[in-house]
Amino acid sequence: MIQSHTRLLTEEQLLRVHEGSLEILQDVGMIVRNEKARDLFATHGCIVEADSELVKFPPAVVEKYRALLSPTFTFRGRDPQYDVTIPRGMPAFTSGSSAPNVIDPISGEERRCLSVDIARIGQLVNELPGFDIHNILGLAADAPQDQWAIGRVYPALKNTLKPCRVTARTPAEAEEVLNIGYLIAGSKEAYMEHPFITFGGCAVISPLTLDQDSTEMLMYYAERGLAYYGTVAPIGGLSTPYTLLGMLALTNAEWLAMAILAQMVKPGTPLVYCFLPVFSDLRTGAYASGGIEVGIMQSALAQMARFHNVPSGAYLGTTNSKLSDEQAGFEKGMPTLLGALSGTDLIIFGGIVDTLMSFDYAQMMIDNEIARMIKRVVKGMEFSDENLCLDEIKEAGPAGLFIEHPNTLARMKTTCLIPDLATREDRESWQEGGRRSIRDRAMDQARDILTKPNKGALDAETDARVRNALGDDLVPGDSVPPEEWKPLEQAPERRRHNKRRKNAA
Amino acid sequence: MIQSHTRLLTEEQLLRVHEGSLEILQDVGMIVRNEKARDLFATHGCIVEADSELVKFPPAVVEKYRALLSPTFTFRGRDPQYDVTIPRGMPAFTSGSSAPNVIDPISGEERRCLSVDIARIGQLVNELPGFDIHNILGLAADAPQDQWAIGRVYPALKNTLKPCRVTARTPAEAEEVLNIGYLIAGSKEAYMEHPFITFGGCAVISPLTLDQDSTEMLMYYAERGLAYYGTVAPIGGLSTPYTLLGMLALTNAEWLAMAILAQMVKPGTPLVYCFLPVFSDLRTGAYASGGIEVGIMQSALAQMARFHNVPSGAYLGTTNSKLSDEQAGFEKGMPTLLGALSGTDLIIFGGIVDTLMSFDYAQMMIDNEIARMIKRVVKGMEFSDENLCLDEIKEAGPAGLFIEHPNTLARMKTTCLIPDLATREDRESWQEGGRRSIRDRAMDQARDILTKPNKGALDAETDARVRNALGDDLVPGDSVPPEEWKPLEQAPERRRHNKRRKNAA
Repeated sequence: MIQSHTRLLTEEQLLRVHEGSLEILQDVGMIVRNEKARDLFATHGCIVEADSELVKFPPAVVEKYRALLSPTFTFRGRDPQYDVTIPRGMPAFTSGSSAPNVIDPISGEERRCLSVDIARIGQLVNELPGFDIHNILGLAADAPQDQWAIGRVYPALKNTLKPCRVTARTPAEAEEVLNIGYLIAGSKEAYMEHPFITFGGCAVISPLTLDQDSTEMLMYYAERGLAYYGTVAPIGGLSTPYTLLGMLALTNAEWLAMAILAQMVKPGTPLVYCFLPVFSDLRTGAYASGGIEVGIMQSALAQMARFHNVPSGAYLGTTNSKLSDEQAGFEKGMPTLLGALSGTDLIIFGGIVDTLMSFDYAQMMIDNEIARMIKRVVKGMEFSDENLCLDEIKEAGPAGLFIEHPNTLARMKTTCLIPDLATREDRESWQEGGRRSIRDRAMDQARDILTKPNKGALDAETDARVRNALGDDLVPGDSVPPEEWKPLEQAPERRRHNKRRKNAA
Repeated sequence: MIQSHTRLLTEEQLLRVHEGSLEILQDVGMIVRNEKARDLFATHGCIVEADSELVKFPPAVVEKYRALLSPTFTFRGRDPQYDVTIPRGMPAFTSGSSAPNVIDPISGEERRCLSVDIARIGQLVNELPGFDIHNILGLAADAPQDQWAIGRVYPALKNTLKPCRVTARTPAEAEEVLNIGYLIAGSKEAYMEHPFITFGGCAVISPLTLDQDSTEMLMYYAERGLAYYGTVAPIGGLSTPYTLLGMLALTNAEWLAMAILAQMVKPGTPLVYCFLPVFSDLRTGAYASGGIEVGIMQSALAQMARFHNVPSGAYLGTTNSKLSDEQAGFEKGMPTLLGALSGTDLIIFGGIVDTLMSFDYAQMMIDNEIARMIKRVVKGMEFSDENLCLDEIKEAGPAGLFIEHPNTLARMKTTCLIPDLATREDRESWQEGGRRSIRDRAMDQARDILTKPNKGALDAETDARVRNALGDDLVPGDSVPPEEWKPLEQAPERRRHNKRRKNAA
């Protein structure tokens, strides 16, 4: 495991930023649109001006409720073996949320997200070891208007044994979502023994505002002890100053205001210190979600999370690229690795391309590979006397060979990551195989998984119970492949013995 | 700047690895093919068995000469303003070496490297801020057989003001190379005042062997105080045990044997703790130079370099991909970032694709962008009270806007990296522009630079002096673009105002 995280700030600098946040909360305050929240703040020592939505926060109040923050957060899956409690020393990766569109796997064109996409993503999350959590992508455009929430939650829960994260805009919608949980579990009581739905939302509107509805939901979840975390999404140059430190001080203040509200509702309410910290590209005003600054910000935010003793999370790898080209590769890989090396516990990223506008199936498979690589990095050097291999080295001697030592073969699958998609064939084989890119191979892998039955699908009896209760216009919710897809007959890539070796001359 | 590096080992574990290396050097020893080197080792306390090439190293001898290692290494350029001394808190990036081939920028096919490629790479290194050092790629296939060394060194030196790293196989070749330096500087004495050629080589043949010729050269450079560093290139599973720790203990021993030889020749001889630590993919025996394990190994090696108090270096981003696809993106970006975050001082990587087999012009441009991103990460949070922006935040107030604050525009070019190649346009603009990938834009950028005169080219008078001295069959050495290339009329990418903004809902 990582023995020491990357740190971009000293402990003294970190404390100075936090003091800056306290100063902001005290002197500037937050606009709190929700009256109930304002009342709660007032009751617990904050200063709420009469006939105003402005709330100011004495540092002692912030510090009192900050001390109540839970050091852990648990995501529960339909199958408890997939439960994830963070921090766990290893980042948990989720599929990406927030994209309204999907790159159609047949046409390659952007289109609205459908319920079948959510179902398929569920199956992919279930199958892919890189992913730990299904973060529901977008809305299902084919679901009836009055099934905004369940039209996306049902296909997700139906196809994933791993934890699901969903959103609800109102208490009524949350009840509808929870009702699916009750139906699957058999009863409300059975569900509450192992509540496998996690809620999310964005109560903070940067800068320094808590909104009406999402803040209502935050209090709703906290009152009931339902798993929920909120994400803060500042935009540098628009909603924050155009410096990394300025964004850090401001957005830390925003998160703290939200977090202490939850503690005022119920002390110890678990949260994730979760952000989407993006700067604007001032040349055009573009939302530079692929910028390396997202990773730098998250490095500092992960450090701040440890200062608060709370789990950290972030949207990372939110590339601006429209396609799985090399830009997508480095914008996916670098900020995400930086976040992980800095101690980020929850990483929201799988499949998202084009500035959080679209989900791409091939990208989801490539992101699984990137997640596996990052997990391998975090696993680290695996220190032990056995792994030091001094006896093997003595046995082989100078100019010896290690390939025939039985330990070499025995460690084949544990020492190095065996990639699914990254090719290591030589140029001749690659040319003969049609000069394919990793995107071609990724689509093969997606097809390979999605044309097989979903091992994580809800059993028929339970599913019938859910469908009977929810009515005829419920989306089908099955993970079915596109009509043009058939199961692959053969492994997608021929593998040849590659004898080439090179020295660094 | 980075306040704390990523560390995969504790200090205790690091010490245990080093003790393992000492044990290897003492009990197993090294085969030393070069007789002069064996004599030097014997003279300085090592045990050389009679009628044998085996040398064993008492730990006290290793530690005595290890203590003499120089903490810094200096690369000098033709123009002293480009001199680089490492460590400097910021990695120095070089163009890639060791590839015999080039992806032809017109046909897209692999072909042998020509002298004009080396000249063009020189111009690119000179122009691109990501790169600090020109590490000469491969041989010039068009150079006469008897100009093996100068056929590649001349086009490099002619087109680069930044430091160049070259190789020579024999003292005679080194003299030929140095002679170009003397001719450019005006005299040997003038050259020695600011010697702008750095030599490299690979004296270690893993496992545990010092070869005949490269070891001779190491001693040659050390005797004369010429800048030189050697690279060690272990292959996990073949030349080392198939564990990360086993490779670390073994290859650290190999480097130490080489390094103390240099100290025995001349105490304080500067070196770089430089590696290409690659594992074999045991499924096929492929050389997995794109594997994330290269980055993990380099993380540990960079930590070991600090233990020895020497500058660290590595080949990183040596992707297995044949083309600038997403695999190239994450295999370029992730191990390189990991190495940098772990404190690697010298990173050898620009332009190299296909398992160190080929150089690609577009990749060189993309690598410049990756290098700039990594430099931005290492620059870090830029802590200051001014950057904390508390006054600006108070001025804007809750729900305020920062876009119109004069400081926002003033910081436009300093807060965030402004990418040359990563697109941030919206989908509509991208589609209208022909759905181009970053590789397309990278080729535009290469063309844009290479169709302009090289500002770093040797002046005509000096060049005439060099050419007169070196004879008629010397390669032309000019950086001329491919015949099909003409200067671009317009900027390669139309930029549109992108109003889209998204929240993380």
